[in-house]
Amino acid sequence: MSIDLEALYIDLHRHPELSFQETRTAGVIARELGVLGLEVVEGLGKTGVASAIRNGDGPVVWLRADMDALPVEEQTALAYASTARGIDPAGTDVPVMHACGHDMHVTAMLGALERLLATKDEWSGTVVAVFQPAEEYGAGAQAMIADGVLDRFPKPDIVLGQHLTPLPAGTIGVRPGTQMAASDGLTVRLLGRGGHGSRPHATIDPVVMAAATVMRLQTIVSREIDPREMAVVTVGAIHAGLKNNIIPAEATLELSLRYPDDDARADVMARVERVVRAEAQASGATEEPVISTLHSLPPTINDGDATARLVAAWERAFGEGSVVDPGMFTGSEDVSWFAREAGVPLVYWFWGGVDPERFADAYARGAINEEIPTNHSPFFAPVLHPTIERGVDALVVAAREFLA
Amino acid sequence: MSIDLEALYIDLHRHPELSFQETRTAGVIARELGVLGLEVVEGLGKTGVASAIRNGDGPVVWLRADMDALPVEEQTALAYASTARGIDPAGTDVPVMHACGHDMHVTAMLGALERLLATKDEWSGTVVAVFQPAEEYGAGAQAMIADGVLDRFPKPDIVLGQHLTPLPAGTIGVRPGTQMAASDGLTVRLLGRGGHGSRPHATIDPVVMAAATVMRLQTIVSREIDPREMAVVTVGAIHAGLKNNIIPAEATLELSLRYPDDDARADVMARVERVVRAEAQASGATEEPVISTLHSLPPTINDGDATARLVAAWERAFGEGSVVDPGMFTGSEDVSWFAREAGVPLVYWFWGGVDPERFADAYARGAINEEIPTNHSPFFAPVLHPTIERGVDALVVAAREFLA
Amino acid sequence: MSIDLEALYIDLHRHPELSFQETRTAGVIARELGVLGLEVVEGLGKTGVASAIRNGDGPVVWLRADMDALPVEEQTALAYASTARGIDPAGTDVPVMHACGHDMHVTAMLGALERLLATKDEWSGTVVAVFQPAEEYGAGAQAMIADGVLDRFPKPDIVLGQHLTPLPAGTIGVRPGTQMAASDGLTVRLLGRGGHGSRPHATIDPVVMAAATVMRLQTIVSREIDPREMAVVTVGAIHAGLKNNIIPAEATLELSLRYPDDDARADVMARVERVVRAEAQASGATEEPVISTLHSLPPTINDGDATARLVAAWERAFGEGSVVDPGMFTGSEDVSWFAREAGVPLVYWFWGGVDPERFADAYARGAINEEIPTNHSPFFAPVLHPTIERGVDALVVAAREFLA
Amino acid sequence: MSIDLEALYIDLHRHPELSFQETRTAGVIARELGVLGLEVVEGLGKTGVASAIRNGDGPVVWLRADMDALPVEEQTALAYASTARGIDPAGTDVPVMHACGHDMHVTAMLGALERLLATKDEWSGTVVAVFQPAEEYGAGAQAMIADGVLDRFPKPDIVLGQHLTPLPAGTIGVRPGTQMAASDGLTVRLLGRGGHGSRPHATIDPVVMAAATVMRLQTIVSREIDPREMAVVTVGAIHAGLKNNIIPAEATLELSLRYPDDDARADVMARVERVVRAEAQASGATEEPVISTLHSLPPTINDGDATARLVAAWERAFGEGSVVDPGMFTGSEDVSWFAREAGVPLVYWFWGGVDPERFADAYARGAINEEIPTNHSPFFAPVLHPTIERGVDALVVAAREFLA
Repeated sequence: MSIDLEALYIDLHRHPELSFQETRTAGVIARELGVLGLEVVEGLGKTGVASAIRNGDGPVVWLRADMDALPVEEQTALAYASTARGIDPAGTDVPVMHACGHDMHVTAMLGALERLLATKDEWSGTVVAVFQPAEEYGAGAQAMIADGVLDRFPKPDIVLGQHLTPLPAGTIGVRPGTQMAASDGLTVRLLGRGGHGSRPHATIDPVVMAAATVMRLQTIVSREIDPREMAVVTVGAIHAGLKNNIIPAEATLELSLRYPDDDARADVMARVERVVRAEAQASGATEEPVISTLHSLPPTINDGDATARLVAAWERAFGEGSVVDPGMFTGSEDVSWFAREAGVPLVYWFWGGVDPERFADAYARGAINEEIPTNHSPFFAPVLHPTIERGVDALVVAAREFLA
Repeated sequence: MSIDLEALYIDLHRHPELSFQETRTAGVIARELGVLGLEVVEGLGKTGVASAIRNGDGPVVWLRADMDALPVEEQTALAYASTARGIDPAGTDVPVMHACGHDMHVTAMLGALERLLATKDEWSGTVVAVFQPAEEYGAGAQAMIADGVLDRFPKPDIVLGQHLTPLPAGTIGVRPGTQMAASDGLTVRLLGRGGHGSRPHATIDPVVMAAATVMRLQTIVSREIDPREMAVVTVGAIHAGLKNNIIPAEATLELSLRYPDDDARADVMARVERVVRAEAQASGATEEPVISTLHSLPPTINDGDATARLVAAWERAFGEGSVVDPGMFTGSEDVSWFAREAGVPLVYWFWGGVDPERFADAYARGAINEEIPTNHSPFFAPVLHPTIERGVDALVVAAREFLA
Repeated sequence: MSIDLEALYIDLHRHPELSFQETRTAGVIARELGVLGLEVVEGLGKTGVASAIRNGDGPVVWLRADMDALPVEEQTALAYASTARGIDPAGTDVPVMHACGHDMHVTAMLGALERLLATKDEWSGTVVAVFQPAEEYGAGAQAMIADGVLDRFPKPDIVLGQHLTPLPAGTIGVRPGTQMAASDGLTVRLLGRGGHGSRPHATIDPVVMAAATVMRLQTIVSREIDPREMAVVTVGAIHAGLKNNIIPAEATLELSLRYPDDDARADVMARVERVVRAEAQASGATEEPVISTLHSLPPTINDGDATARLVAAWERAFGEGSVVDPGMFTGSEDVSWFAREAGVPLVYWFWGGVDPERFADAYARGAINEEIPTNHSPFFAPVLHPTIERGVDALVVAAREFLA
Repeated sequence: MSIDLEALYIDLHRHPELSFQETRTAGVIARELGVLGLEVVEGLGKTGVASAIRNGDGPVVWLRADMDALPVEEQTALAYASTARGIDPAGTDVPVMHACGHDMHVTAMLGALERLLATKDEWSGTVVAVFQPAEEYGAGAQAMIADGVLDRFPKPDIVLGQHLTPLPAGTIGVRPGTQMAASDGLTVRLLGRGGHGSRPHATIDPVVMAAATVMRLQTIVSREIDPREMAVVTVGAIHAGLKNNIIPAEATLELSLRYPDDDARADVMARVERVVRAEAQASGATEEPVISTLHSLPPTINDGDATARLVAAWERAFGEGSVVDPGMFTGSEDVSWFAREAGVPLVYWFWGGVDPERFADAYARGAINEEIPTNHSPFFAPVLHPTIERGVDALVVAAREFLA
């Protein structure tokens, strides 16, 4: 009597929850774990859940799935599209969508646990399943660690995790070494002086200050980073003003920065701060901008040997050509914290969710970027099959590779 | 037994209401009019109120006061500072403040009506008092007209109105001809393509599009308008994105445009549209920006003869030097619609609310713009006296000048 | 046997000379003065010429004409269009054109001197004629004063001058008070670090620094100056780099600033410096920009009484409607120095050179700016008649108004 | 009796010549070839020189050295620093410097020829030496081919070449596959409308148009190119205007674009054109910008097998660790044309010219970019030894590897 994974996925997709608000999701997970007869610890890192299959002596393998959704208004037109809304940290009512596939992560994890349980006689050791909240804030892993997840379960010998991505369904993407970038999220408050929209000379216009800052920040990547190196300076949000005829007193920028390693992080951060402060001076601001860090994510670095073992195991299981090197991703993850904190290897891989024919067709026309919705897009919509099955299998094969 | 105008002002100041939501304010006004024994028509233009003193044959003088407040968070530290909040048209919970002095406009109007009532034997004719909502949206005058205010009361022979301003308390500012600018409020939606903050190349970044547009809009005033002409292109609000690591699909700008007349309006509007459309093209946008008009205000033009009569009357009443030419204001008003619709003259003047010593001191140090809070500033705070008294007197003297 | 003014004008137009290089022009002037039998002092302020008609007791009226041309490539297609070239102060070979009408100024002055000479019995006093070099550098008047022109000729009771402008030929434009703006010319050197075009990260790119500075300078006029005040911040020249694949070490901007008075000058200069320095910091420049002043011109302020006398005299002479108020010009002049130094009144006026029908036609279609070439345009081309005649007459009538 | 290579290098360094003007350099080369008793063909591709050592049957190896210098003002303070000047294609008098090390290329080539001649009994085959002009214009190789260099000498079996670079002296840098980027040089003429600096509204300001275009071009690399891909959009030169108070009619930009392959070329070119045209529209330009190509260089792709052979040969000759993978260079070369035209393999490598201790010291402090002058810098100054010797040896070892 197995879990109906398709129904489970659709239910999760219909009920996305913002970071650290995944209470319903945690409830669904806990219920399924209970049905499987597994131990359940809830409330780790506010809304996180963890469980374990303890199956005699042997290695301890941690599997991690994240479970939060995003403030995106779904536009997929799917029958099961989300119409959910939530309250973001600023108190704003926003649409919510599983635009990054974490619903699929949870689904595959539960499927894998059921399979591993059903095949307990084929392996020994311990599998720890971590359902992590707030990956999108880059804060959930550390919150679970702060709540003692590493003490309450057997320490890992290896940490494994997977992420849905716009590769063809059936394909796994992984590479040894840096798999995902380091990243920081910054908030920049630019302080001007407000006043009437008809009297700009009596104000210090923070909208113009913000616009000039955004334009100048572009030059960090375009002129100051070695063209062969990876760096991203995204201004993901800009907000100032409530009314056309009032010049507001301040503007807020939200930045997402990406780099391959910690040296580049320090370098880019210094450049961002230099630009922000100078542009405030160019505006004649009388108060310094306030720069604060929202989150800081390490690079996701795959252990070389462990990755090689997994690639071989998957190719055996899924056939030649089923595993590709997707290159380094410029996105970031907080999964590393579990492995870093425990001082053990990590392998983090991607698996595809795009209809293979659609992918091949777009690829042939050089239209991948235009036609295949990426993670965080309002159109992000994995095909259900074989995405679910491959997600389950990839986890099971990987866990079994490191279990006795 | 007269109205306690200071207490009335403080009450109104403590309870500011956004445009078209002035229900409590309208209630207070209606109650005071009732106490005075005057007729009251409520609900004109949603929340407007009108009344009349019918005092035999003679000219009909309309007096107008506006009564809405602004989404500004008061920072005056006054004992009676506002802590009110409201819901703006976008559904956002915002702070509310009488940052433009309309509470003083209402106070002075009620004081003037009481005085005119008390001196009925000295004049004849009709005084119509119009308490207008939503001046800040540039929509209240037209809404009252649409609701028939010009039909339900005797048609004006002249329309009079006054506005609080950062002149020294005691001083009146007025000029014949164009007293205030024409103005339009625009909303510009810039349409890009959203995606993950780490993959800008798969998006059309609307934040950069918006920033480039704001910078380019500056060149209209700096390069394209005759340096001797007045024009203002203010971007009072800019909004895009919910989260640092999601590139949003669109950005919104709110523009406030100002010009001396309708020719300049057409000219500047065409330039704004040219810049907005070209910057979307520079971003490779696949959808055209959407430009819509929030409101459109005519220039406020004072009748030459009527203004000359008032200047003389005030100088007789308040002394030589009490009236100054404040120059054309770049702000705008919708008071003109009452006079335009009726085809009669208008005089609209300013009266000061700044402590005269503070004003003189700042002036001497060339620090007016830095130290004297303007309308719409979170620090806007008129001194109560003699501001209230001069506001009452200015209205009474002006009305009497045109009554028999 | 009078001077053939048309031939003289065409000769001067064909042989334009850059500022302080007006040697041929000075020679032509000296020769004509000699033919008239007038005294000639050459070499005042390098290439300036002065002369006088001493005609008994009476007021001393100074008439001033400037005589330099501009580095503009004439595109008028006139038979007598300039093909001249010159060497500018940077040592560059440049085209030269009388694109500001100083050839007409010289022509009208010589015509006026001849007429005044021919009518000596109708007036008494002294007329001093000053042919000034290098007005375009804002340096010629001070150079002539430094060379003692005020000592070598009788001190003026009034200084008069005129300038050709795109008004209809026959029309004079003048106003009491500020007739032309104050102005400064600045050179800004932005110091970066050069390198190979393929390795921007090893450089500090001065081209981007210059571009960001130009864009930010726009915000001074668009946001920081009262919209009712006049200010101009023009970047008239930008230069950096010799080759597409070498990032240069520095960039140079040439700025022309305009304002109504000396207070505004100090204010705008401070803002320009603030922007320039902050943008260098935003680029991470390790050396401060170098800002130097090329020239500094006072406002041109017409004496109120003297202007009123002239307007009346011209209307008597040329008919009602022949004199208009052209408003304040944003251009600048150094003619003021003669009057300032002597402590006497100045009147400086404009006279038109555009075919009246063409002007009326463009005006009717709102196409003045598009169709009528302004001073400094490569298409600037006054009609010869009645421009020459009106220029002569305007000077003669004006001089006679102040002579006995 | 061998060539004094140090003296030769210093002589060439003192007498740099711009592209296609290398007449003295060609003369020096021809003279040395004559002294060696080798055949000399001059005037190939205007100023190119070619020679050959015909030594019996065997492979034909082409060695190529480029010989032109750059419009850079040397600031090295070396005793033999260049003070030379030249006339660039625009007719401007400019400083000239061997800022890219082509003087060292020529020196090493002549040293290698002498050595190969002296050891003729150790090898057989043919060595063709090509001294190419105008590499900096990306035009010299094609010019020599157009002049028949491939017909006048035995066709190559392989083409070899080397370039000086800021690696430690003694080190060779090479990689199989793409060694240098593809590149295009563009000229962009932005057409506005000129006028007086005080009347911007009567003009279409090309300086602002150019500045906005430069700022917007930054967003191609910062937002539109995959952060993991290499692309460079450098504006190496910007020119507009002759005088601060004249707004010019046009501005010129010189762009250097870099990409790894021809697909990226088409993509970036389209984006540049989109930005340039849209920014002209944003300025209200009435004429389209004129975009023209100065030169177009293919990627420099090293043959995999041949590169592997050379790496092995050099490590045998110079020791383990003497050859490094320098990564792909973002600079470009036209050496490929010889191999492309002949349809044979190419290997193009770099050799270091920086004092090894200075390099190590800067590297340790993370100050390579700040302290080690790159090619095209006015401070570019290779140490003479062992740079000269290693350049000679690298060529000899490489040639011998492919000769019989």
